[in-house]
Amino acid sequence: MLQLLHTPDGVRDYYGNECAARQAVCRQIKKTFSLYGFQEIQTPVFEYFDIFNAERGSVASRNMYKLFDRDGETLVLRPDFTPAIARCAAKYFGQQSMPVRLCYLGNTYVNTAGYRGQLRESTQAGVELVGDGSVAANAEILSLVISMLQAAGLTRFQIEVGDVRFFNSLMEEAGLPEEARRELRGYIENKNHFAIEELLSGYPLSEKLSRILSRLPQLFGDPAAILTEVRTMTESPASLHALDRLERLIRYMDHYGQSQFISFDLGMLGQQDYYTGMIFKAYTYGTGEHIVTGGRYDGLMKQFGKDAPSVGFGCNIDALMQAISRQNLPQETLPETDLVIFGRDRAAEAVAKARELRAKERPAILMPEEGREADLTSTLKAGAACLQSSEDGKEPEESIKEYCLENHIGVIWHFPAESSEVYQEEACHE
Amino acid sequence: MLQLLHTPDGVRDYYGNECAARQAVCRQIKKTFSLYGFQEIQTPVFEYFDIFNAERGSVASRNMYKLFDRDGETLVLRPDFTPAIARCAAKYFGQQSMPVRLCYLGNTYVNTAGYRGQLRESTQAGVELVGDGSVAANAEILSLVISMLQAAGLTRFQIEVGDVRFFNSLMEEAGLPEEARRELRGYIENKNHFAIEELLSGYPLSEKLSRILSRLPQLFGDPAAILTEVRTMTESPASLHALDRLERLIRYMDHYGQSQFISFDLGMLGQQDYYTGMIFKAYTYGTGEHIVTGGRYDGLMKQFGKDAPSVGFGCNIDALMQAISRQNLPQETLPETDLVIFGRDRAAEAVAKARELRAKERPAILMPEEGREADLTSTLKAGAACLQSSEDGKEPEESIKEYCLENHIGVIWHFPAESSEVYQEEACHE
Repeated sequence: MLQLLHTPDGVRDYYGNECAARQAVCRQIKKTFSLYGFQEIQTPVFEYFDIFNAERGSVASRNMYKLFDRDGETLVLRPDFTPAIARCAAKYFGQQSMPVRLCYLGNTYVNTAGYRGQLRESTQAGVELVGDGSVAANAEILSLVISMLQAAGLTRFQIEVGDVRFFNSLMEEAGLPEEARRELRGYIENKNHFAIEELLSGYPLSEKLSRILSRLPQLFGDPAAILTEVRTMTESPASLHALDRLERLIRYMDHYGQSQFISFDLGMLGQQDYYTGMIFKAYTYGTGEHIVTGGRYDGLMKQFGKDAPSVGFGCNIDALMQAISRQNLPQETLPETDLVIFGRDRAAEAVAKARELRAKERPAILMPEEGREADLTSTLKAGAACLQSSEDGKEPEESIKEYCLENHIGVIWHFPAESSEVYQEEACHE
Repeated sequence: MLQLLHTPDGVRDYYGNECAARQAVCRQIKKTFSLYGFQEIQTPVFEYFDIFNAERGSVASRNMYKLFDRDGETLVLRPDFTPAIARCAAKYFGQQSMPVRLCYLGNTYVNTAGYRGQLRESTQAGVELVGDGSVAANAEILSLVISMLQAAGLTRFQIEVGDVRFFNSLMEEAGLPEEARRELRGYIENKNHFAIEELLSGYPLSEKLSRILSRLPQLFGDPAAILTEVRTMTESPASLHALDRLERLIRYMDHYGQSQFISFDLGMLGQQDYYTGMIFKAYTYGTGEHIVTGGRYDGLMKQFGKDAPSVGFGCNIDALMQAISRQNLPQETLPETDLVIFGRDRAAEAVAKARELRAKERPAILMPEEGREADLTSTLKAGAACLQSSEDGKEPEESIKEYCLENHIGVIWHFPAESSEVYQEEACHE
């Protein structure tokens, strides 16, 4: 019997106040997407494997949940949204030369071998802005991230912005072999200075190039300071172009009144191969994971037959909810609900009361006394629902108290049997 | 490349106005559930196979999508919600003696061999009221179905209500062998009179019993008329008890002011084995399928370790949306959105305008002119966005017209480059 109560490893149920809080945050996020002109799109939970293969996806094939069609085709539970939305943009807006703004909210599935407690079904909300390669589009996406996190209730968070072209252009200049580049990426991401120095010393690099590469892991922080410092460190046109775009980006963020949430990290290299320009991550307190990740991917759409520069992000709703909860931020609860208890001969009046409450948008639960005497009789003294300790100091019935708490009961209306009285009482919430 | 644009058979994307309309209907439905005191619960998309096995599920094992855990456990994409919600009610509210009201909205998956076009991923919204065996609970569920369909925008629909105990008690009385009962069920469901008469003539039944059984397929329509007729046809205490409950039910529906939506069908037998009492289906115009199906299942919860009478329903959102559309009922569209076009040197003003609009809850799209001259230049004559045919009779650019339609653009704000003018124009919608 116990087995029947379990969910598989890595997935879980959401209910009660936790579910209400998640739903409220998701509503706020969707509303923010809409205010920025993004249209919602819903894609199927499974798609052909090819949509998410190594060239496009962010999850290794062995970590996808696979299933089979009646026709023997291999399907996968979507591990990621971006390729699915790219497919839709190409399919439904392939001929549209103007920018296309799409957003989504749904679950993704990764069959990790990971430790207990890691979620294999997780909720993602995100947007893709397809067909706009401008700095303005980059800024719009960052602004939307900030507005979204604020709408979700966060006040303290930071978005770290980098640009993959910066590191890539330095690598072009340095002419390191592929193997060494990969190694160097790893060292930079882990901010392993000694390893970086040692690796670089093995190659005949200019002093300038050596210096900027070994300094990369420290090139994060205040945008103006980073820009000023790095401008003195490089003369490479590609690097300077990336810096110019970052400078225009921060000016846009000033227009939005949101630049205080932005910091730069030129040592951020991007895990997804499809990123081609700006990349970013949003962090906050109370969760180890980044809550948002995104960037520009100007090559991905071409794989689906629509050659369009694009930029987007995904928000990890599970990490966001964890942060909101650990930061003790206000969270929506179940709505306050009235409870209408009635004797057998009072059904007409009780139903009328419930209808009246619901018509005023007040949730109401109807509860016949009949058959529930054990729970209610000693509680309903003299017709009233005495949830507070009564005068003789006796505690009310546990079951009704617990019920009122679980259901966020506000007012109890009581229509006792064989009477014409109506009693009204506030339920107490400790 | 084309392959990359396809979704697997039986699943599809939703976007644009269709997606907006679905979302709006789902919001209204969830709000109605909340007004009746139901709490939302979200369960994982896959569960252990056992949850949905033949004793509990409504879908044959061969029609479930199966996948495998890392541990080799067989998982299935949920084919149905009721067993999953029953699992949750037992797991989280196992000790609660008071009624538990849970609701859900999500997708179910059936791997049918069916014809092209049949959905294998479909959206269901529903509720389960666990721990209340009263007629009041049955009536509440019917009232909620009616309120939900009205909130979704339907005005013309009918709920046919039956009770599996009526047929079951007649079968007890008749003492037909199992095989004959199964045959008879099929004939009654297909309203095959000749086959019914022929089958019954092979058994020594009382004239009264024969008459009511052969009349069963006609016992549908106005509740009062059905009750009056059937009362004269049977003296079986179990049948009379079922009739009494139906009579009390219709009285409740009068209290709710909703009895005009109810008809009875005593020949309705219920496809799910788990139904034990009242069963019902809701129909409307414009879709061949029933849009809601539900009933009382007093034995199911015990399988999960919580012995509690329960009643609930599921609404087929896809069929509901089809009906709403075919009945030409008003449907929500994408929200009207303003378009803010700006020259390179006007970014600060344009962003300020977009912020102002969004702060007033008006969606706004920002669009830099730069790089989009081909789409915009001939459209933006004298700084204004001329979407209407201009005075010289020339049509506006197709791409911007199409864009405005697709994005439901209301007002176009234009901040031309190298100017201090601001132009404002209504986008035209044919």
